[in-house]
Amino acid sequence: MGEVDTLYARFMELRAEIAYLNSANCVLEWDMETFMPEAAADVRAKVMAHLSGAAHDRAVSPEYGDVLSALKERLDAGRLQGIRAATVRKCWKEYERERKLPGEFVRELADLCASSHHVWVRAKDNSDFGAFLPNLQRIVELKRQEAGLVGFVGSPYDALLDVYDPGTTTADVERVFRPLRLFLSDFIRRVVDSPHQPDAALARVSVPVATQELLCRRMAESLGFDFKSGRLDTSVHPFTTRLHPGDVRITTAYKEEDFLDALYSTIHEVGHGIYEQALSREHYGTPVGEAASYGFHESQSRMWENLVGRSRQFWEFYLPCLQHHAGLLLGVGPGDIYRAVNIVRPSLIRIEADEVTYNLHICLRFDIERGLIEGEYEPQDLPEVWKGLIREYLGVEVPDDARGVLQDVHWSAGYFGYFPSYALGNLYAAQLYAKAQSDIEGLEDGFREGKFRPLFDWLRDRVWCHGGALEAPELVTRSTGSPPDASHFTSYVERKFGEIYRI
Amino acid sequence: MGEVDTLYARFMELRAEIAYLNSANCVLEWDMETFMPEAAADVRAKVMAHLSGAAHDRAVSPEYGDVLSALKERLDAGRLQGIRAATVRKCWKEYERERKLPGEFVRELADLCASSHHVWVRAKDNSDFGAFLPNLQRIVELKRQEAGLVGFVGSPYDALLDVYDPGTTTADVERVFRPLRLFLSDFIRRVVDSPHQPDAALARVSVPVATQELLCRRMAESLGFDFKSGRLDTSVHPFTTRLHPGDVRITTAYKEEDFLDALYSTIHEVGHGIYEQALSREHYGTPVGEAASYGFHESQSRMWENLVGRSRQFWEFYLPCLQHHAGLLLGVGPGDIYRAVNIVRPSLIRIEADEVTYNLHICLRFDIERGLIEGEYEPQDLPEVWKGLIREYLGVEVPDDARGVLQDVHWSAGYFGYFPSYALGNLYAAQLYAKAQSDIEGLEDGFREGKFRPLFDWLRDRVWCHGGALEAPELVTRSTGSPPDASHFTSYVERKFGEIYRI
Repeated sequence: MGEVDTLYARFMELRAEIAYLNSANCVLEWDMETFMPEAAADVRAKVMAHLSGAAHDRAVSPEYGDVLSALKERLDAGRLQGIRAATVRKCWKEYERERKLPGEFVRELADLCASSHHVWVRAKDNSDFGAFLPNLQRIVELKRQEAGLVGFVGSPYDALLDVYDPGTTTADVERVFRPLRLFLSDFIRRVVDSPHQPDAALARVSVPVATQELLCRRMAESLGFDFKSGRLDTSVHPFTTRLHPGDVRITTAYKEEDFLDALYSTIHEVGHGIYEQALSREHYGTPVGEAASYGFHESQSRMWENLVGRSRQFWEFYLPCLQHHAGLLLGVGPGDIYRAVNIVRPSLIRIEADEVTYNLHICLRFDIERGLIEGEYEPQDLPEVWKGLIREYLGVEVPDDARGVLQDVHWSAGYFGYFPSYALGNLYAAQLYAKAQSDIEGLEDGFREGKFRPLFDWLRDRVWCHGGALEAPELVTRSTGSPPDASHFTSYVERKFGEIYRI
Repeated sequence: MGEVDTLYARFMELRAEIAYLNSANCVLEWDMETFMPEAAADVRAKVMAHLSGAAHDRAVSPEYGDVLSALKERLDAGRLQGIRAATVRKCWKEYERERKLPGEFVRELADLCASSHHVWVRAKDNSDFGAFLPNLQRIVELKRQEAGLVGFVGSPYDALLDVYDPGTTTADVERVFRPLRLFLSDFIRRVVDSPHQPDAALARVSVPVATQELLCRRMAESLGFDFKSGRLDTSVHPFTTRLHPGDVRITTAYKEEDFLDALYSTIHEVGHGIYEQALSREHYGTPVGEAASYGFHESQSRMWENLVGRSRQFWEFYLPCLQHHAGLLLGVGPGDIYRAVNIVRPSLIRIEADEVTYNLHICLRFDIERGLIEGEYEPQDLPEVWKGLIREYLGVEVPDDARGVLQDVHWSAGYFGYFPSYALGNLYAAQLYAKAQSDIEGLEDGFREGKFRPLFDWLRDRVWCHGGALEAPELVTRSTGSPPDASHFTSYVERKFGEIYRI
């Protein structure tokens, strides 16, 4: 055992060195999005590319390979257990993937995606898909190649999906999305047809930015975000950066005329942030010290944003606070504001979509991505495919490509396989929340008094403590007692929105 | 020439890679001092140490050594001119030094200094020199070794001084400091004995912190600091970080009851900041793209802080602004506030010292450092040596070591050879300023109307444009037409303070 200990200790040192480079890059990225002066953009991109390259070099270096291979042998011989076994298994998988991608290929893809960002921004601004098409064609070509290099059993899309949601295949996603699509299409039609529409005007609350900052900070604190181990700042698009569990930074964006937008962005990022703060410091730098998957991460942010933050009980607590302490929403009742923040309306833009229609935006992107990687579609087909699918799923007409196929940053960045995690997150959230409800007596009654700690503690003790030791589907199964299943989400939607829209 | 071009281009690439690592480390350091949550301290130290190590490894790597050696041959054969020659000459000198220091030695010194910081902080808090002595002994031992490893002609202290002020020897410093000491001791005695003492109470202006922030930001702008290429933030001790000429960050510290303290800290850092912003982007990553020396850097900050910011004309402009727009210092005259910000009073603490007594604090530290490195003193002698020298130079009695030998951070960090640059900066500032005065008609009359741009432009065109291509003494000589000379400083002091104290 002494020999394995030494080997493992060296392995942890090598992982720490990679983690230090990644952590430095995260500070640079966070700084770039929050505080960096504009004249620094070019050099910053070079510094970040250099650090990424250095981290990749270490992750495929001979010493790292030797130490990891030696540990893999011990794993196969049954000489590693528990966390160590999980760590080596996950790292080996990562390493196998990295090794299959030639340095040349990695660099070309990274360069292409970095330089495509501005092309995409300009194309979107001008709603000119043709201007982005050559970049997209090359990116799709390389992503198809990547799938081939990595290898796959079912669909080539599996090889890409696996980066974001390991343990979930294209067939798994399809199996979950198909009934979800049918349910949602029908349900949304009934919502739209309902004569009982909430008053949307109530949800637009005008508040000075300084006051919004204070209110969002307080909300983050009351949901359990630890400001000794994190920060809340401002950026154009809200995001969460994790440098270390002791340094988790979330951002939000303030518009004077729309306080609730900042509030819900903050709650969403707090959901990501408290998960990151709870991850193991001991296993920092290894997959066990990280989140289970992108989809699982999203389940945490969506749970706090939607299942908690858009609940009636939340507003029974928070509306009086806003009325008494900030003089906001005077004369409004909790039921009114609850309905106003839960309006369901088919729309063009994913990031503005409500809780119910959101998943159809994801189904559409999944269909397109899979079709592209499997060769069913070519990039030039996309604007028409998009228009057809969004008409079919959501019944809306696309007026231009800016509000259609060009709206998301993901494809310009090469993030094929990322989108499904958004919908998986919604499904996991509903399933985990249902279990928390049955485990914690009076969970939602507590919300009425601002008591969010029982849910925080439940998540910490049943879910977060596993870090990335388990793959997301297994983690959901362990935490809830049953495998991932969309029925919790559909029941939740039927109950909540059925009541609001009286359908 | 094609071959030299190729070689030089590769050299610039290798320098850029080192610069990227250093630049990343500067962001981490700036973040640590300004925004980092407290729980991140331990990991941050490790990340920074790792990046420093990586930068050092590259600076002594075989490829870097080969390319630089090849260029050095071309230089010796007279095949490099101008900026390229200066760059290779300076880089070769740096490289020679780095190579002479074994990795083992560098790491021990770095570890020792990093771990000595907290020992020094605690020792200072408890005024317990004995608690810091073992660390200081080992640091001095290593610094003596360093001098031996690097080599020297005159004093071993030369080898340490050269890091901060290349081109200046211990004998040069001694030659300048001796008459300065005599002049100042006598002059200060006369100031103290003068019956015409300004009213110190006027200089303590109480202003809400938010207003101070606004005023300091405006001051930075009006002195020429470019916020598109920099930031102004808050930290415990003000400092300037340069990530790149397009990203220069200065900090200040606000105390509600003392606005002028923040104002002068800001002006001082602006002096550093505008110099950094003006350095060459083309030569980023090489000594030519950097400041000429620490002393020269200090000359810029001190010029703006003292020769401009503490001038009568500055207050003739700024006092009405403060009175009319901020309602501050009402009923005070420009002559009164001018005298109040120019009080000369021998004191214990260097960083609180006025323009005149400041240099004696530096002379004292220079005497001690040189004595330690040359073996005249041992670390255990320091408290008594300190007490004796400060009594001799400034006529003040040290009540405890916290306010004596333990007051500065430098020795715990291994910065032997740094202190002289503070006094050299004051001397260079006076000499450069005298030349600017004779070159720019009505320079100080312009200050009366808030016109600082002519001085900025003069410095940019005559001084900053050289970057680090020349060593500081040469740069002073070129810019002013005569070699560094303390007489400009002493004349300035006699004129200004002679008038204020009527002596």
